[in-house]
Amino acid sequence: MRPTVTEIEVHDVRFPTSEELDGSDAMNPDPDYSAAYVVLRTDAQDETGGAPAEGHGFVFTIGRGNDVTAAAIRSLRPHVVGRPAPLTAADLGALYRDLTHDSQLRWLGPEKGVMHMAAGAVVNAAWDLAARQAGKPLWQFLADMPPEDLVQLVDFRYLSDALTPEEALEILRAAEPGRAERAAQLRERGYPAYTTSPGWLGYSDEKMIKLAQEAVADGFGQIKLKVGGDLDEDLRRMRLAREAVGPEVRIAVDANQRWDVAEALRWMRALAPYEPHWIEEPTSPDDVLGHAAIRSGQPVKVATGEHVANRVVFKQLLQAGAVDFVQIDAARVAGVNENLAILLLAAKYGVPVCPHAGGVGLCELVQHLAMFDFVAVSGSWEDRVIEYVDHLHEHFADPVVIERGRYRAPAEPGFSARMHPESIAAYRYPDGPEWQARNAAQQEGTS
Amino acid sequence: MRPTVTEIEVHDVRFPTSEELDGSDAMNPDPDYSAAYVVLRTDAQDETGGAPAEGHGFVFTIGRGNDVTAAAIRSLRPHVVGRPAPLTAADLGALYRDLTHDSQLRWLGPEKGVMHMAAGAVVNAAWDLAARQAGKPLWQFLADMPPEDLVQLVDFRYLSDALTPEEALEILRAAEPGRAERAAQLRERGYPAYTTSPGWLGYSDEKMIKLAQEAVADGFGQIKLKVGGDLDEDLRRMRLAREAVGPEVRIAVDANQRWDVAEALRWMRALAPYEPHWIEEPTSPDDVLGHAAIRSGQPVKVATGEHVANRVVFKQLLQAGAVDFVQIDAARVAGVNENLAILLLAAKYGVPVCPHAGGVGLCELVQHLAMFDFVAVSGSWEDRVIEYVDHLHEHFADPVVIERGRYRAPAEPGFSARMHPESIAAYRYPDGPEWQARNAAQQEGTS
Repeated sequence: MRPTVTEIEVHDVRFPTSEELDGSDAMNPDPDYSAAYVVLRTDAQDETGGAPAEGHGFVFTIGRGNDVTAAAIRSLRPHVVGRPAPLTAADLGALYRDLTHDSQLRWLGPEKGVMHMAAGAVVNAAWDLAARQAGKPLWQFLADMPPEDLVQLVDFRYLSDALTPEEALEILRAAEPGRAERAAQLRERGYPAYTTSPGWLGYSDEKMIKLAQEAVADGFGQIKLKVGGDLDEDLRRMRLAREAVGPEVRIAVDANQRWDVAEALRWMRALAPYEPHWIEEPTSPDDVLGHAAIRSGQPVKVATGEHVANRVVFKQLLQAGAVDFVQIDAARVAGVNENLAILLLAAKYGVPVCPHAGGVGLCELVQHLAMFDFVAVSGSWEDRVIEYVDHLHEHFADPVVIERGRYRAPAEPGFSARMHPESIAAYRYPDGPEWQARNAAQQEGTS
Repeated sequence: MRPTVTEIEVHDVRFPTSEELDGSDAMNPDPDYSAAYVVLRTDAQDETGGAPAEGHGFVFTIGRGNDVTAAAIRSLRPHVVGRPAPLTAADLGALYRDLTHDSQLRWLGPEKGVMHMAAGAVVNAAWDLAARQAGKPLWQFLADMPPEDLVQLVDFRYLSDALTPEEALEILRAAEPGRAERAAQLRERGYPAYTTSPGWLGYSDEKMIKLAQEAVADGFGQIKLKVGGDLDEDLRRMRLAREAVGPEVRIAVDANQRWDVAEALRWMRALAPYEPHWIEEPTSPDDVLGHAAIRSGQPVKVATGEHVANRVVFKQLLQAGAVDFVQIDAARVAGVNENLAILLLAAKYGVPVCPHAGGVGLCELVQHLAMFDFVAVSGSWEDRVIEYVDHLHEHFADPVVIERGRYRAPAEPGFSARMHPESIAAYRYPDGPEWQARNAAQQEGTS
């Protein structure tokens, strides 16, 4: 008998990160890093032959509204519970299509925002389940699939003017011969990373400089600073950072969508003498033409993607020559399947993928996609780096490991998505003890 | 003392329209037209001096997920309840900014999907309140505002490469001298409409032909057919419709996002001999470059907008020359304020606005925006028509009135947004008697 999904469990988990200004930037002054966390329960035996197998996934949010996202995940219940547990590429393709093509739910996007991210969390949980049951880390589970299976995972609707299934197959076949060698390289050397930890806007100069120097000492070849609040401030911070790390270390800057086109041009022309490696999210993630204008109007390379809603917008960023780096996010689009489409698009256009990470568990997830890209899609880690932020990894059962500025390739089966049950219990909002204590303290303070 | 918003009330209201295949199209085979309905309660006296004043608004959805949208509206409570009732242009500008710039909630879009539509419902409810308190129908309330006040309502972020506040002011000032004359014309003649009622994919040929002929007899100069299911079917239906209405009546066609670029080109080249007036939603609403390619690659004019997420995407559709008609929707973007931005963008680029309507109450709302555009923005109704669908108007307290193919200008104060309390009670999901009866019948059928 085929195993079945028996339950979908959803938790609203929030961490009070705003208390330390971790994660503060020009658009997000006080994020409480959060996860709308989903567990797919099944009646299959897990890979140890013991407990029933589970799949875990989540949407990353920054606080308020995490409950809305949790409600969106719950609305997907009828598409999952009571159905066969998705374990094969065919199952995982069907589940993704089913979740994103429910016509009534699609109306709420289409394919964007809360409903789309909710679909992504469920898709990712299914991949966690399937990879664990296969006894492989997700990157390897994907990289072991035949090109024909991988192509079946992609929804080519709206893509065919830029990428056909035949072209996708060609890209994957071209990378096939080198898979084993690159997987070995990856296991041996890890995947290049950069760190954003020094660069939050809320940090003092001293803290920023200290963290930047530590990052270089730790082996990172690239750091990132948040910009976009005040130009004079940014010039000062950029100068201090450049002095602290020297001319060889790359310094990317990130405006978090703060600017209009003209502001982006003015700002980046001013910052250019300090040689920023890229300008990230200079303007609205929806503004393909705006990014193209910014890319062509100043000397710094352009990166975006963490808030790009779906493969259709990524397609256009590439068609318009609007970006130098594609920044996929594991939990913004509809999961592994849609990110596979984006990796293939980027490969077609020859644009390197440098994933967005940080938040809660985004490093844990997205490392798998970048590693799979290296082994089986683009076949390259040239000019490619995964973002690293040293927040909240302690809450995960299989946290990322960074060594000398590189992500170690995960060896545990699954998608590294699992939070410790104790962390979920402690930070459940609003009823977990961490939040109850804060609410009690706040009420005392106001009484 | 300033009046205050005392409560935000949210209802999940759904109509079982899928039972009749009303509203069926190539992407949406079985919609249950629904509203996530919001009431802002205040402690102000209403315009009659009697009951406390209220503002009503809603998100339109097509069934499942209406509860998710309702949850999103509830998440906006802290931005509204206990705050001054928004009654002036300044208040309404501030409320809109407050709702769309909550950084934590913005993360869930940004400015798109469930969270953005929820903000739109609350913004529209505030406009309903303010217009009623001013004793004017919304179109007139807006058209009586000085250009300077109207410009303050717009969020120009991400727009300034296409439209500056100064240019917006110029557009509004240029239309100022003719306002009174056009308002008089509007009251006398009504605003041109077209009807989609004949064209749903689920209807038989006979029903379609009969309804098309009735539409012409009723004075409509334009009808619309759904296409995109099957090309031979569409050719047959288009031929039958053209025969039924003759060469003078405009027949628009609507693919509801069904195609990729190449399919749209093939389909529209085939349908072109029947002279469709426009092709609506040929592909993904996110695909600016795709629409541009479709517009330039076949002879039929291109329309889109009902699913366009926000003003940034509309801006690009205009910048790229991708559309011949801009189809605003009253309940997809963040309410009156964002639609004002879109009207101004369309005026700047000289593209006519032909609003999307139908669903639940979309005709009631959007007529006000088109009429305001005529009186105070574009100053023209040349080549402009508001969609009309004859569904569900009986549930509204101030329903649209169509006479000889034109919308009569509303005279009642407010935004025509109010549903009868009896309709809300009867169709509340899942606990209203209409749904309880259906659920009971269904359970009987399956037992």
